[in-house]
Amino acid sequence: MRNQFVAACLIGLNMPSLAAPPTVAQVLEHSPATDWRALEPQNTLVMELTAGQVLIELAPRFAPRHVANIRTLAREGYWDGLAILRVQDNYVTQWGDPDAEVPAKAKPLGTASARLPAEFSVPLKGLPLARLPDPDGWAPVTGFVDGFPVAADPKTGQAWLAHCYGMVGAGRDMARDSSNGAELYTVIGQSPRGLDLNITVVGRVLQGMPGLAALPRGTAEMGFYADAAQRAGIQRVRLLADMPEAERPALEVLRTDSATWPALLQARRVRQEGWFVHSPRHINLCNATVPTRPRPPMPPK
Amino acid sequence: MRNQFVAACLIGLNMPSLAAPPTVAQVLEHSPATDWRALEPQNTLVMELTAGQVLIELAPRFAPRHVANIRTLAREGYWDGLAILRVQDNYVTQWGDPDAEVPAKAKPLGTASARLPAEFSVPLKGLPLARLPDPDGWAPVTGFVDGFPVAADPKTGQAWLAHCYGMVGAGRDMARDSSNGAELYTVIGQSPRGLDLNITVVGRVLQGMPGLAALPRGTAEMGFYADAAQRAGIQRVRLLADMPEAERPALEVLRTDSATWPALLQARRVRQEGWFVHSPRHINLCNATVPTRPRPPMPPK
Repeated sequence: MRNQFVAACLIGLNMPSLAAPPTVAQVLEHSPATDWRALEPQNTLVMELTAGQVLIELAPRFAPRHVANIRTLAREGYWDGLAILRVQDNYVTQWGDPDAEVPAKAKPLGTASARLPAEFSVPLKGLPLARLPDPDGWAPVTGFVDGFPVAADPKTGQAWLAHCYGMVGAGRDMARDSSNGAELYTVIGQSPRGLDLNITVVGRVLQGMPGLAALPRGTAEMGFYADAAQRAGIQRVRLLADMPEAERPALEVLRTDSATWPALLQARRVRQEGWFVHSPRHINLCNATVPTRPRPPMPPK
Repeated sequence: MRNQFVAACLIGLNMPSLAAPPTVAQVLEHSPATDWRALEPQNTLVMELTAGQVLIELAPRFAPRHVANIRTLAREGYWDGLAILRVQDNYVTQWGDPDAEVPAKAKPLGTASARLPAEFSVPLKGLPLARLPDPDGWAPVTGFVDGFPVAADPKTGQAWLAHCYGMVGAGRDMARDSSNGAELYTVIGQSPRGLDLNITVVGRVLQGMPGLAALPRGTAEMGFYADAAQRAGIQRVRLLADMPEAERPALEVLRTDSATWPALLQARRVRQEGWFVHSPRHINLCNATVPTRPRPPMPPK
């Protein structure tokens, strides 16, 4: 399997020799432009924090109802002026309405739904999974779909988004179906895969994780801020589709259904860089972050 | 194996029924005092940052030369007034002397060694490994020794400290044996296990990770701070042994050679708490953080 990857990579990159498998930097440098894709305007959230911009890619294939609700919330300005509520070290940063549980004070959800069915998993059958051959303790099958880390179990026939660093989920209360996407969280530490299949995951942070991961940790239970004054404010959250063209962040995402992606994984398994003296010959789903890059300037028309 | 754990736990905790395995909270609450240990004064570093105190437990069994050098550096005040140099999101925070590479400006190492042999691994034979039965993709064997996460390979006969969240290592240059423990780093994101066997790991942060993980990310290459003014200062680093008794942080660590430890792991595999609707029936080496707690007050003499 590994040799196939290397071979595929070398063919893809048109390299002459098997002697020195390419490094991560070389794989990226030689990747054809067609192995990268633009941001999908309807599936990209742009969150403005004091600390900077956070770009989140939504996953409609895995959580269609939540993603539709999140689009509505963004269009109607739901998060504008709300706040980061919770930062628990080595776990999650969570944001939304501090008064969500106080009916008299809660910000209205507008035309968005207050409650949605749980979207914890989808059928594995038919899913275009770029499978990762490396074993994973949490699930019998792992891989990538649309750039998202996915775990699956052929026995149950289900697949789900994995709680890797930077993944975004929809907070819920005790009931399975108590989330609506208004309160969101992202993973800021070691991937808490034990949350998988317990909560609806809606996307991942493509850019701007420092704005969510470098925040002061909350000192109240579960990392909530003890004092409202400690909360970082959210200035605005918009869909990329609702931003003027000129203001849209120009970012590209590596396609996980490209030849570059398995070549990149292989370069991380077998380290050719000078510093490394040992190659792990393994990569884990959550250590295989899908890269982004600034969009190259368009050629003149 | 799982049933053995549950049974061992129930016997250990003297619980009457097999019907409801204990939760994480119950396991901790019922743990006997003898399953906890005090901090080892010669193996505990106390680092004072503006953001608070960071406690680091050293691992002399795995890196005896580096730990001895680190003790010397602490005793001679090497880190006092130095700084956090690098914070790379989802990777590491690193600290030491900003001028370490400039001979004319570098802070003298005092009586500490400038260069040590690499201590990447130790013989597996004879190691008191509390083995984790759960599969791990990075290594054929994992478990815990002295509270540290350990990976091992029976084929090579070697064992090593794993790069889990909060583990502390000794930065090195290109040469294997170019570290001396003066420049240290800790893992602040998804565990970069690909670093295992490539660098000397010297311990783990027991308390105070937010002081290292919530720092602003550096914007220069590899997360180094572009501007010296952005660096957080280190006020002082001491060995616990060199602090007056009354000032020493009163913390206990759960023994990983106790009956409570496997019971705690099992409670994380099989979730009995109300919120969880799915149990992972798995735990990963790096998701199984060994707990600490404030030391209970001593009974009057």
